[in-house]
Amino acid sequence: MDFPSRYIEETVAEFTKLPGIGKKTALRLTLHLLKQSVTEVERFGETVINMRKNIKFCKICHNVSDEEICNICSNRSRNEALICVVEGLREVIAIENTRQYNGLYHVTGGVISPIDGVGPENLNIETLIERVKTGKVEELIMALSPTMEGDTTIFYISKKLKDLPVKISTIARGIAFGGELEYVDEFTLARSIATRLPYENYLLSK
Amino acid sequence: MDFPSRYIEETVAEFTKLPGIGKKTALRLTLHLLKQSVTEVERFGETVINMRKNIKFCKICHNVSDEEICNICSNRSRNEALICVVEGLREVIAIENTRQYNGLYHVTGGVISPIDGVGPENLNIETLIERVKTGKVEELIMALSPTMEGDTTIFYISKKLKDLPVKISTIARGIAFGGELEYVDEFTLARSIATRLPYENYLLSK
Repeated sequence: MDFPSRYIEETVAEFTKLPGIGKKTALRLTLHLLKQSVTEVERFGETVINMRKNIKFCKICHNVSDEEICNICSNRSRNEALICVVEGLREVIAIENTRQYNGLYHVTGGVISPIDGVGPENLNIETLIERVKTGKVEELIMALSPTMEGDTTIFYISKKLKDLPVKISTIARGIAFGGELEYVDEFTLARSIATRLPYENYLLSK
Repeated sequence: MDFPSRYIEETVAEFTKLPGIGKKTALRLTLHLLKQSVTEVERFGETVINMRKNIKFCKICHNVSDEEICNICSNRSRNEALICVVEGLREVIAIENTRQYNGLYHVTGGVISPIDGVGPENLNIETLIERVKTGKVEELIMALSPTMEGDTTIFYISKKLKDLPVKISTIARGIAFGGELEYVDEFTLARSIATRLPYENYLLSK
């Protein structure tokens, strides 16, 4: 594709670096911004730059934050005996949106994946161990990806904590509410049969 | 959706202003940028702002340009007796990419649409009339949207030019090469039968 302007070409190139944005979409976004006022485009560009420059990561749970300590960790009404271990911000937002969880979080920043060169030392695991060592934590809920890498990470953490009096649980895997059996993969289906619940618990979870 | 950081929230809000970007995609783009270095994010933001601030519009054809006169209008090897009238930059890029057209362009900036408050005075039509009045232009190829508004715009321009010795043509509408008849809308199919070509011309166009 040839562009009649270097500026257009450069902006399209920047947009195509974003995930899921191809050349045609990038051009559409660029032309949209071209139609906006200079003030609006400046606000767009500066908002993005300011975010990257000013964002902090919570010193306790490593979630993104505007302060040194995020507003979940500093919230005294939350249950600090319960920590949900997640990979990133997206999972924190998803769980927070359920409005059902009242514990704290710990953001690992990923899962152990030798193939991608990610070892335990690249993740926020040491600080999790320290948090458990304070003795205040009663249960860790592992909410990592249900993949080989996620399972490896859970295994690594549980081994590191085996001498500490903390309960480790994983979130339930199974058929989603409204999910139809015939479209579920065999692995999930088999596991959801193996880990079936007494009917009383099912009624409770509704 | 609640965000743990005002910066994230603002960036997501800016991205959702772009066409076709919903809240989930905006968050994905924001988190992607968060993982990039400050330098890279600055380059992204500044490229967009610079584009909007520095881009010019060609004084002859109104296409975007880095100079006062775009590199198509200033290209002496192009046929200046032929002008293709298009709505915007996207159409110029599409036609240029065919590498088959050697004339010039005129970008109207849209089509007449009373319902959207767009009248002839909001479009670059006056300057098109001036270009034709120079006497150098032999043919105008209308490549506007095949909609009521596009047709109205073609009609308006042709009326304005009725006393000038210029030929007006429209690009061929019909079944695309490789298009299957059964999936084409009736209107296009009916028109492609009404405006059928002698077989010799079809062979020529191959």
